[in-house]
This record gives sequence, C-alpha cells and structure tokens, in this order.
Amino acid sequence: MASARPGSNISAPTRFVESHGERYAYRRFGDGTACPLLCLQHFTGTLDNWDPFVTDPLATRGEVILFDNAGVGRSTGKVPETVSGMTKHALNFVDGLGIKKCDLLGFSLGGMIAQQMARDRPSLVRRMILVATAPRGGEDIMHLEKPTLARFLADPKLRGYAVLQKLFFAPTESSQAAGAAFIGRLALREEDRDPISGPEVAKAQMTAFREWERSAGERFADLSAIRQPTLIVNGVRDEMIPVANSYRLGEYLPNAVLLTYPDSGHGSLFQFHESFTRQASAFLESDSLYAPY
Amino acid sequence: MASARPGSNISAPTRFVESHGERYAYRRFGDGTACPLLCLQHFTGTLDNWDPFVTDPLATRGEVILFDNAGVGRSTGKVPETVSGMTKHALNFVDGLGIKKCDLLGFSLGGMIAQQMARDRPSLVRRMILVATAPRGGEDIMHLEKPTLARFLADPKLRGYAVLQKLFFAPTESSQAAGAAFIGRLALREEDRDPISGPEVAKAQMTAFREWERSAGERFADLSAIRQPTLIVNGVRDEMIPVANSYRLGEYLPNAVLLTYPDSGHGSLFQFHESFTRQASAFLESDSLYAPY
Repeated sequence: MASARPGSNISAPTRFVESHGERYAYRRFGDGTACPLLCLQHFTGTLDNWDPFVTDPLATRGEVILFDNAGVGRSTGKVPETVSGMTKHALNFVDGLGIKKCDLLGFSLGGMIAQQMARDRPSLVRRMILVATAPRGGEDIMHLEKPTLARFLADPKLRGYAVLQKLFFAPTESSQAAGAAFIGRLALREEDRDPISGPEVAKAQMTAFREWERSAGERFADLSAIRQPTLIVNGVRDEMIPVANSYRLGEYLPNAVLLTYPDSGHGSLFQFHESFTRQASAFLESDSLYAPY
Repeated sequence: MASARPGSNISAPTRFVESHGERYAYRRFGDGTACPLLCLQHFTGTLDNWDPFVTDPLATRGEVILFDNAGVGRSTGKVPETVSGMTKHALNFVDGLGIKKCDLLGFSLGGMIAQQMARDRPSLVRRMILVATAPRGGEDIMHLEKPTLARFLADPKLRGYAVLQKLFFAPTESSQAAGAAFIGRLALREEDRDPISGPEVAKAQMTAFREWERSAGERFADLSAIRQPTLIVNGVRDEMIPVANSYRLGEYLPNAVLLTYPDSGHGSLFQFHESFTRQASAFLESDSLYAPY
C-alpha cells in the first residue's frame, strides 16, 4: 500500500491480523535492520494515542509495531480484567505476525504487560523500555478518585484530549505547553482513526490495575526473574503512577537503568520526546547483555 | 612540560596555584573547546583517586581539572569542617586559575560542594553532574558505623585500596570484579602521587557530613534556587550515601535528570565508566537551558 509517509503513525495504514480466534488492529511502519519494537499502550489508549514524535524517530532504526489489545480500538474480543489476560492477547498477536524476537516499549498499563510478557515468554523479549509504570505490588496506581486527578476528570470544561493534557503533564506553564503540543500532534492523523475507548474499556482496565496492586509473597521479589536489559523512564511529578514505582523497578529489576525527567508527569516521554527518543534509541542499539548504555 | 600521555590522569603533572593565602595542588589535562570540567572529590580522596577511565574520556572534549581541597593531598591549609568552608576554597582555587565559567563533576562529598558552589556563585557554573551525593538535609549520609560499612572498615585483612573496593562496590561477583579493575586503574599512575589522607582529614570531613545532614527550614526547599541543568547519577545499592538521596535531588532540583545504575554502589561511575562517560559527555555537550539531553 502506497503512502506519502509510510514511516509515520500519522499515515501508516491500520492493518488486521487473525490469531487464536481474535482479530487484532495494528500498525507497523519504519525501516532499518533493528529488532522490531512492539509498543504497548496506556489505559484506554488506542493506536491514535501514540505520539508520532515518539514513534517516528524510533521507526528510523527498525520497525515500530503498535497494536490494540483485545476489546480496544478496532480489535475484537473482551477487555481482560487482568494484566495477565492482556499479556496472553499480546502474545497471541505477536504469534499472529510470526515474530520470534522483539523489543518492547510499555507505557503505563503497557509497561505492566511488558513485564508480564518478559516473565511469560522470556525468549521473545530482547530489551525493554518501561515508561511511567509500576511493578506488581506497586503503590498508588491509577487512583483516579484522588483529588489531584479527580478535579480534572470532574471538570465539565475539560473534555476529550483536554483532560489528557491535565492528567499527563505537570501543573507548570512549561509542562502544560508541552502537553498542548502533544495533543496537537495526536490530531495530525486525520483518517483511518480508531474509535475512542468507552467506559467498558476503562472499567475492565481499572479492575486490572487493582489486581496488579496486589502482591503475592515477598514484595517485588518476582522482578528478579526478569533478566532482560531494561530502561525505566518517568517524570518526577507523575500523579497517575508516582515515580516511586519506577524507583522500585530500578532497585528490584536486576538489570535496569532508570532515567527520570524534571517538570513532567505521566507523559514525560512525550514532553521530552527529543531526549526520550535519543536515549531510547541508544539503549536499544546496544547489544550488550547489560542495561547500562 | 612534555609527557607521553598529557591527556590522562595517569601522567598529567601535578601543578600548584596560590590563591587567597593557600597553595592548591591540581592537575589539568585534555584538549577540546568545551567548557572546562572541574572535578570535586570524595571523602578522603586525593588527585590519585580519580579513575583515569572516567577522567580521560571526558578530557577528549575539553579540559578536565582535578584539585585537592585545603588540607588534602598536597594542598596547604586546614580541612574545613563544613561543606560551605570547602566551597570557599574551591571558589578561591578557580579564582586562582582565572576561570569564569566551568562545568562541575561532584562525586559524593564533592557533589555537596558542587551544589554549594552553584548556590554561592551561580554565574560560575554552566552545567553540573552530581554522582552518589545528597542534598542538604539528606538521610543516612556516610554513617561508617553502620554494620554494612563497619564490617569492612574493621576487617584487618582489608587495607588501603582493598577496603575501597568493598565500600564503593556492591557485594556481587560482577560489582566486586569491577571494583578490582578500578583499584588496578588507580595504581596505573606510578610517580608524582599525593600522600594518602590521614585521620585528621577524615575527622574534619565527617564533621562536615554531620552538618550537611541538618536542614534549616523546609526540607530540600533550597534546591529550587539551583537552576543549572544537572545530571544526577547513582548506583541503586549505594550503602555510603543511599540512592534515596539522589531521588530527592531529582525531585527537588527544578532542572535535573536522574540516571541510576543496577548492581552497583557508591562507585557506579567507575563500574560503568563506558556508559557514564558517554552519558556525561552527551549531557555536557548540550547547550540547552534544560537538563534533558
């Protein structure tokens, strides 16, 4: 299929693959010889919530693959109520594409799925980037009823992407300006867009967050089984999944580098897209068995 | 003065400069057009405690300047009992060299002096790197009486650099191997070495740590006055100045990126010297007003 900008999430066509009885919507674009990078999306996010200023620079080094998990966007099926259930769909999806080895970029909920993929099928995952996420047993994960978040969700003046700007960016002039620019970039794709997620997607995913907060056995001990080189990224003012969760990932994952950004929240990767894509590319380009890059 | 390797701490001659009634020992080496990088040393450390695998790669981009604070190594004067007092000497030293603008690399105690220099003379400091250090009011700073540290200091089999290997590196095979390599590199310089610091240096510097632990007013609020782009680095298993202090720096400095390394302690910059010098160079090469690089 011809396209003016085949290496961009602004214009890459949405495709579909059947696997294990479901039909998954996805996009794949980019050039280069690097291991493909599978991107795992945040709470209620669809293919259209990936910032082209993040995906497109990463697609210059190898293929970037975005997908809608079951019941999200144009993918069939029911949204699972556990991270483990979402992980099964993600593995079915990569099997559908015939991918045997990939890198992972997991953002927020997607970072939890990435960790579970590395646990459930270690041979699949080469390196992974976990942005604004939490380990199982983490603290204060996506409590939208907190006053710091509820005030935006309850504000009738904030609808659609305007609320995302408030939730993903810090309450400073500089961060909000970066948020406005991010929202603008999400609108650059004009056709072939996903439907916006409804309340049933949010409800099931929120159930999964509550389940992920529960820890069985010694807290964070299960992270020692994840040996893949990992880059952890977060903004120090993340109200949705506070940065303390990233600290715990950096301390308990045996092979992880942590990078935090100032003056930014949940969406630090979008706010500092130039730095993030430079750091992410440098990390992914390493073929060392160790995370430091 | 001719030298086989003028751009290296292995062979750079020790020099002396008089300023404000003291005579400071220092080394300067390297080529390039970048802003000079002033390196501020750790507890009891001298010119010879700087790992050439850290200093020398940084000296390929601009001049690296190492110096002994008052009363340390071959510098005259009395070791101050406050970070503020050490900062005055550091400023006197740069005045003696006629330096109007520089970057700072502050390691441990040196990171506290770097913060104070940025406070006391903001116009001097362009960008700074704070490794394995703590803000004023930080927690658990250099408590050598803790069992995790005291067991090495009390061990008669551990003398000289052997104890440094235990204190600066994590108790894993990989980190201790990196520590042994570090110790080996410190021995590469064979002539023109500093005397090893005695107990009077340790005593005064320890008094300074205790004073630095005390906070006046709202904890960490004074960090908001430091606007210089800052890179914070630490190993997640630092027992001397725990990584939580680096977290607080990343949260309260308004313009700082934090990088943490796995499987490493106080000496993470030496253990991961390739990554550290690559990251430090990329950070220093930026001329942005913002820390992300």
